[in-house]
Amino acid sequence: MEILDGKKISQEIKEEIKQAVGLRKEKGQKIPHLAAILVGNDGASLTYVGSKVRSCEQVGFKSTLIRLESSITEQALLSKIKELNNDDTLDGYIVQLPLPKHIDEEKILLAVDPKKDVDGFHPSNFGRMALEMDSFIPATPFGIMEMLRRNEIDISGKHCVVIGRSHIVGRPISILMSQKGKPGNATVTLAHSRTQNIKELTQKADIIVSALGIPEFLKADMVKEGVIVIDVGITRVSDASHPKGYVIKGDVAFDEVAKKSSYITPVPGGVGPMTIAMLLQNTLLSCERKSVS
Amino acid sequence: MEILDGKKISQEIKEEIKQAVGLRKEKGQKIPHLAAILVGNDGASLTYVGSKVRSCEQVGFKSTLIRLESSITEQALLSKIKELNNDDTLDGYIVQLPLPKHIDEEKILLAVDPKKDVDGFHPSNFGRMALEMDSFIPATPFGIMEMLRRNEIDISGKHCVVIGRSHIVGRPISILMSQKGKPGNATVTLAHSRTQNIKELTQKADIIVSALGIPEFLKADMVKEGVIVIDVGITRVSDASHPKGYVIKGDVAFDEVAKKSSYITPVPGGVGPMTIAMLLQNTLLSCERKSVS
Repeated sequence: MEILDGKKISQEIKEEIKQAVGLRKEKGQKIPHLAAILVGNDGASLTYVGSKVRSCEQVGFKSTLIRLESSITEQALLSKIKELNNDDTLDGYIVQLPLPKHIDEEKILLAVDPKKDVDGFHPSNFGRMALEMDSFIPATPFGIMEMLRRNEIDISGKHCVVIGRSHIVGRPISILMSQKGKPGNATVTLAHSRTQNIKELTQKADIIVSALGIPEFLKADMVKEGVIVIDVGITRVSDASHPKGYVIKGDVAFDEVAKKSSYITPVPGGVGPMTIAMLLQNTLLSCERKSVS
Repeated sequence: MEILDGKKISQEIKEEIKQAVGLRKEKGQKIPHLAAILVGNDGASLTYVGSKVRSCEQVGFKSTLIRLESSITEQALLSKIKELNNDDTLDGYIVQLPLPKHIDEEKILLAVDPKKDVDGFHPSNFGRMALEMDSFIPATPFGIMEMLRRNEIDISGKHCVVIGRSHIVGRPISILMSQKGKPGNATVTLAHSRTQNIKELTQKADIIVSALGIPEFLKADMVKEGVIVIDVGITRVSDASHPKGYVIKGDVAFDEVAKKSSYITPVPGGVGPMTIAMLLQNTLLSCERKSVS
């Protein structure tokens, strides 16, 4: 059994990005610049955005945090987005979700210039990804593919079961794994809340990607010997004995499933850290694309 | 065993469209207008486009066939597309594929205004479809969904195996069948040329959609009793005994598979005729959307 160490791999990627930024600096080229819009004061959102900003600093990017009152109107937020679309110094930006309920998330998402959509959430980027054109790939599935690539895990012809059909994880990873490429060419089954006999499916799977959000859903009796397990679940579970009052749990009963796995990602320290690294990667990519065009 | 009669269902759809056009006429509203660009003189393309134009006439649409020399430059074709994008009388248009080799199909595809892209091939439409927003759904998968809907075939929780990962059939139908909706919520496995043990998969499938292009690939011993079979394959097979010198074969060995099926589409007369009906449907939809906006 080998642990797919997202913390370590993401550090390597950040180190590479840092070097690329250093080279750009030497050559007098533009330094990548990422902005983040945070509306309101949600605790988890603050943590995520803070971590993204710190990561920018680590790799030498310029970063801008734009904090807006939760009472902001949809129109004012759209104006802000228009401003960022027109700001030539910016290579990419993200709008931290969720947004307050009075704002239509879809409308906001569609307003982001696809060329600056480093989250890869705009339908134009999603469609380009699905049709195998250059695009920004959403950070979580991009991170999973990169983990497989860097560990030289061959998924061609293997049967992969993806659990969960969300727009930002399950759907895109099911597409990416079944496309031509390296890694790629897997036979992919997309399972979800309406799937019957999920156990029958997972027991036959060579690879399982779980993006369900149910703590310790995947048990040892649901997988076969030698399975590769990618755990995308991140759920806060109340735990009075812990100083924070909660612990983070993945979708996988790690200890028991690990014993049967050839590769497995831990939670935390697996897919999570990869996500931020790939957001930085997309921002660097955006900066480089602008340089050539 | 019940035959899913695409010829009959597509006639019903065309009849409904014709009535909708009649109503629009009565109310003095705009009549839907579809254009088709045909480059060169390829026999099959001429047949397809001819059939689309005739179908427009049947339902009372205005149609325009734009024939261009196969020697046309990419730039000249792009200018033509720009012209169509700016033509307010047009609700939609298609560019018949394949294009001559000196023209970059992707570039042409991307130049089509997504609002007139009634083929649903533009990444913006594809992404919107995958992200469950309003879009134009490509005609073949749209036709398959419509056949299921009109026969009230419930696919929720059923295991569907899609064979073939093309951008215009396999990939989109795998997405549509696994989305929420009616029909929808199927557990979908996307199989393709690199899939191992395809027979093991198809033998367990409740529904099989084959879009492979290998005549009579799917045999009776590959399916279970009661399976639903959708055959998207259309291959011309040489046959000297036939006046045309060929016969059209699907991916399914129809006679033997039909005996085990609960529903099956024939070839010809199954998915094929549905495709044109859904192209008309998309054009009507585009015309109606413009009326409200």
